[in-house]
Amino acid sequence: MIIVLKSEATKEQIEQFAKELTSEHKVSVNEWTGSQSTVLGLIGDTSEIDIDYIGAQDIVESVKRVQEPYKKANRKFHPENTVIEVEGVKIGDGSTVIMAGPCSVESNEQLLEVAQKVKASGAQFLRGGAFKPRTSPYAFQGLRTQGLEIMLHAKEKTGLPIVTEIMSADHIDLFKDVDIIQVGARNMQNFELLKALGHLDKPILLKRGLSNTIEETLMSAEYIMAGGNEKVILCERGVRTFETYTRNTLDISAVPAFKKLSHLPVIVDPSHAAGIPWMIEPLSMGAIAAGADGLMIEVHNNPKKALSDGAQSLTPEQFDKIAKKVFELKSALSKIK
Amino acid sequence: MIIVLKSEATKEQIEQFAKELTSEHKVSVNEWTGSQSTVLGLIGDTSEIDIDYIGAQDIVESVKRVQEPYKKANRKFHPENTVIEVEGVKIGDGSTVIMAGPCSVESNEQLLEVAQKVKASGAQFLRGGAFKPRTSPYAFQGLRTQGLEIMLHAKEKTGLPIVTEIMSADHIDLFKDVDIIQVGARNMQNFELLKALGHLDKPILLKRGLSNTIEETLMSAEYIMAGGNEKVILCERGVRTFETYTRNTLDISAVPAFKKLSHLPVIVDPSHAAGIPWMIEPLSMGAIAAGADGLMIEVHNNPKKALSDGAQSLTPEQFDKIAKKVFELKSALSKIK
Amino acid sequence: MIIVLKSEATKEQIEQFAKELTSEHKVSVNEWTGSQSTVLGLIGDTSEIDIDYIGAQDIVESVKRVQEPYKKANRKFHPENTVIEVEGVKIGDGSTVIMAGPCSVESNEQLLEVAQKVKASGAQFLRGGAFKPRTSPYAFQGLRTQGLEIMLHAKEKTGLPIVTEIMSADHIDLFKDVDIIQVGARNMQNFELLKALGHLDKPILLKRGLSNTIEETLMSAEYIMAGGNEKVILCERGVRTFETYTRNTLDISAVPAFKKLSHLPVIVDPSHAAGIPWMIEPLSMGAIAAGADGLMIEVHNNPKKALSDGAQSLTPEQFDKIAKKVFELKSALSKIK
Amino acid sequence: MIIVLKSEATKEQIEQFAKELTSEHKVSVNEWTGSQSTVLGLIGDTSEIDIDYIGAQDIVESVKRVQEPYKKANRKFHPENTVIEVEGVKIGDGSTVIMAGPCSVESNEQLLEVAQKVKASGAQFLRGGAFKPRTSPYAFQGLRTQGLEIMLHAKEKTGLPIVTEIMSADHIDLFKDVDIIQVGARNMQNFELLKALGHLDKPILLKRGLSNTIEETLMSAEYIMAGGNEKVILCERGVRTFETYTRNTLDISAVPAFKKLSHLPVIVDPSHAAGIPWMIEPLSMGAIAAGADGLMIEVHNNPKKALSDGAQSLTPEQFDKIAKKVFELKSALSKIK
Repeated sequence: MIIVLKSEATKEQIEQFAKELTSEHKVSVNEWTGSQSTVLGLIGDTSEIDIDYIGAQDIVESVKRVQEPYKKANRKFHPENTVIEVEGVKIGDGSTVIMAGPCSVESNEQLLEVAQKVKASGAQFLRGGAFKPRTSPYAFQGLRTQGLEIMLHAKEKTGLPIVTEIMSADHIDLFKDVDIIQVGARNMQNFELLKALGHLDKPILLKRGLSNTIEETLMSAEYIMAGGNEKVILCERGVRTFETYTRNTLDISAVPAFKKLSHLPVIVDPSHAAGIPWMIEPLSMGAIAAGADGLMIEVHNNPKKALSDGAQSLTPEQFDKIAKKVFELKSALSKIK
Repeated sequence: MIIVLKSEATKEQIEQFAKELTSEHKVSVNEWTGSQSTVLGLIGDTSEIDIDYIGAQDIVESVKRVQEPYKKANRKFHPENTVIEVEGVKIGDGSTVIMAGPCSVESNEQLLEVAQKVKASGAQFLRGGAFKPRTSPYAFQGLRTQGLEIMLHAKEKTGLPIVTEIMSADHIDLFKDVDIIQVGARNMQNFELLKALGHLDKPILLKRGLSNTIEETLMSAEYIMAGGNEKVILCERGVRTFETYTRNTLDISAVPAFKKLSHLPVIVDPSHAAGIPWMIEPLSMGAIAAGADGLMIEVHNNPKKALSDGAQSLTPEQFDKIAKKVFELKSALSKIK
Repeated sequence: MIIVLKSEATKEQIEQFAKELTSEHKVSVNEWTGSQSTVLGLIGDTSEIDIDYIGAQDIVESVKRVQEPYKKANRKFHPENTVIEVEGVKIGDGSTVIMAGPCSVESNEQLLEVAQKVKASGAQFLRGGAFKPRTSPYAFQGLRTQGLEIMLHAKEKTGLPIVTEIMSADHIDLFKDVDIIQVGARNMQNFELLKALGHLDKPILLKRGLSNTIEETLMSAEYIMAGGNEKVILCERGVRTFETYTRNTLDISAVPAFKKLSHLPVIVDPSHAAGIPWMIEPLSMGAIAAGADGLMIEVHNNPKKALSDGAQSLTPEQFDKIAKKVFELKSALSKIK
Repeated sequence: MIIVLKSEATKEQIEQFAKELTSEHKVSVNEWTGSQSTVLGLIGDTSEIDIDYIGAQDIVESVKRVQEPYKKANRKFHPENTVIEVEGVKIGDGSTVIMAGPCSVESNEQLLEVAQKVKASGAQFLRGGAFKPRTSPYAFQGLRTQGLEIMLHAKEKTGLPIVTEIMSADHIDLFKDVDIIQVGARNMQNFELLKALGHLDKPILLKRGLSNTIEETLMSAEYIMAGGNEKVILCERGVRTFETYTRNTLDISAVPAFKKLSHLPVIVDPSHAAGIPWMIEPLSMGAIAAGADGLMIEVHNNPKKALSDGAQSLTPEQFDKIAKKVFELKSALSKIK
């Protein structure tokens, strides 16, 4: 950590401040005096030092971290890729996983039909929403507990492990048979929820928030990991920008960034990123070519009757075509050195 | 609601679609045929129609709402300002309220000292954080339950009603003696929390999310109000943009926008918006002149020792100067017609 | 164009307004009366109607375009891809073109070395900056006219056609031997420059502005095309968001969007998008897989001595490796149906 | 300037790099070695060192400026406010100036009527557009040279000095009798134009770009000042964000930021910021209370017939009411200490 002091800081103030730093933290302090300002360099473990606290000191002009503030999620301290295995399917091992299914679970028939079809197309996971975060209190809020039962029923029939979103720590018990618990973009900084999930022994799919940085996303992963649960899958699903043609702007750079900074698997959700069915194919192809470990895609047996997000869902037939292309692309990429 | 259909939509498809709309919703449908497309106009209560559902239809090119999707928060259906009274203090009645106090509650002594000083300067509410949302799991997370006790103790001693943030619906019972419950920016779309707060009879201070639109903020207010709790106070606290000089960008336009679209009181938090202590004065003055009903300002007896957000806190002396100016400004504004 | 009128609009006002619309524009007007508002639908050529003018009418609540405001750039009126041929190289015909070279032209030796190497790696165009837009007036501003001469010299020696940026309509005569004139992101809405370029018979590479929408980019292409020059190449180079890890955020969705809305070729500049050399490979792969017609990549013989943008430049060796992968990917993609 | 080196940098590399820095720039270098990295501190004039060049060095992890990169615009080197006097009216001296008039100049009659009315309401400058930057090539482009003549005619008749926008360095001669030349948001980084304006002896009103930072705006001011023309007026006119209710988001924080960092006068344009006529009053009041030196407001004698931006223009009567309130507010503020 590098601390630039104000030009008016006196020698006594600087000495006093340096003394506090070394006594309160496991760091040593180096001082270097420039023409306009003095700079302090902190050596040691600075990840637990509050950068705001430092910035608040009267004599401090600015502060800059040299170390990243996350440890467990940091590739520096865990150079190999984390591979998460769920019911025999590996995520993060260099293969491509696809999680497909409807935005909302609507009925046993609907989900089973979709599950069978996406499985036939090669999807390894069934996704579906039971608890639905909706902007409007008047919109369909999901089948909730009943929706989870339908998900489990579809799993039983098809063998596909399931991924579904949790909206409150209160519901954790209900999710005990879910294979991967999803944290939605709007809850990425619901820290009480993250802490609770940190005590489970179950993979968590963490979606990046609408306007959260790459670092903040890794800090939310760190919340879960700090509790002991290191099975975190990162998901890029588009960020909010000024552009209105697409629902969000897919930040494709987040894929290589997450892979570089962290050892966690990274998947991409092109359905929510674009909000436009015909754009799912090019974005899926782009995501895989850029290095994503998998995709999460909305598929509905009857998109125009979907109770939510129908506008961006694919039919099983459209999905089949894309899945084929994605797997062919992956196969080709594995031969390009 | 206006629905533009694709040029290739057939007469049969259009008729079929119109029939569905009228049978499933309390609306009538008007059709108008242009040179390149047909347009349907829906008359009636469209607030419960899912715009995504409409957009997902094969024959639909685009959809546009004419009515706002919020009802209880909408000034059109509630023309008078909502005035919320807390322990005799009115919010939204044309006066200026100031909520002041430390980011984090740290001890009885700290909070009492701050409370007495901000009261002397004219603040009508004591704010303070017991449960703290922090980006890092390694940062101070607040004194939690003990922090609430310290808040209540300071209330008892000074008579100042208290405002403090809730982070989970699980904690609602702990907040039963809190005067105003705050929903932080990161939880603005924690819908399970909003629903739970909708069942209370207690004012809720709802902070706008970092990248949530004005309409989304009103929809989150609607979540609370739809549950029966109409005592919602909106709070603009800066949105996330590309600018890095300030911590966030205060969206001053949100003040007149919220006042125009809604009947709810609107306060501004210049401390979190800028993250720079010297900027709190000009932003406070600007917010009041633009029509805000009040301010929420961070004040700490010893900012450089604050356990969180010290960098943006004012000393009680700095706060006193600003509060004086703000009240003088308000008095002057009341004479300008 | 659909115009929603305010509920208080009188019958006389509406009639009067409709009469004006039909007399001043080549449109007919359809009226449809809802429960809360009246809606007018305009049929005919509305691309020359000023949407702001309509919105300014006292009785107008809101306006919505149904037609896109661009015509010459619009795929609807020009379904086939535009293919631009430069010195025998085709852009937009389904192949992949790479434009490579240094950010700034620095000397004959430097440019020639880079040109020979990128040519050997398969680049079909030499890019290089002679006139440099720099944020600081104290930064190196480019070799200007001398830089153009060095570019032409490198073209003569290697046969590579050249791409270089223009910063003012004043300089057009200097660019007469340049093969493709680039309009930089900061000049994307320098309308006087766009108009001047519209009178040339030379390909223009138009970079999307830092915070310009997809539609605005197409409108800037339309400026050039409206003058008679239909040889426009669109370039996505990252937009400005809140994310700070990358220099900009590459909007990969813009690639399929531009291809869908327009018939113009689309290339991607991963160097400026990320500003990070190691990210150029994954972003290049992603861009090609998402459907881009080509790439523009910064290559410098000695990045750490580059006079500008060295931080994001590749060495010729790094570039060679990426170009190989990109061409192999393209070959594989051509076999995936 | 502080340079953090990579952990793998060797002693020889560091020595070599430090030697280069001291030989090529007027700086001395201090070295400090931490547990994970070595840090170099540069002392001296670093404003001409290219931060990208430093960042491109193989051994460099990151770079941080301690000094601002602007000098002539920097309040540190010019502590007193710059006051610009135009035809006897002072800008930046603590008073409030208002520049009012139509978006586009349309005719002698129109402009004269508006000029007389805004003058009667207290405006000290007449604004009006002759050369108009329009997103669409099919929209009205301004009366251009004839528009300037109409502006000068209105000045002659009313005595109001005039402010109008330039779109190309080519047109400078045409602007010789204009009192204040405006650089629009879309040309804020048209560096060739800025350089040309730097050679004039005439006030330049520089609008902040749609997505330019505060620092970039000051760097554009520096471009003009570096050429010798130190009469720059900064103008905040809203930035582009995700919010769609307002046309742009007025960054009120930019007012105190510009005043703190720079000595230049700062005005606010609430008309373009919001794009909503009824919002001009609260934003004007907010801007003045936050410390702006003046306002630029669009006024049209007949907004619904305006050839551009009518949707956001005020009538002279509406403007009169706001101007009165603004001047009363300013008078009240001058008494608040």
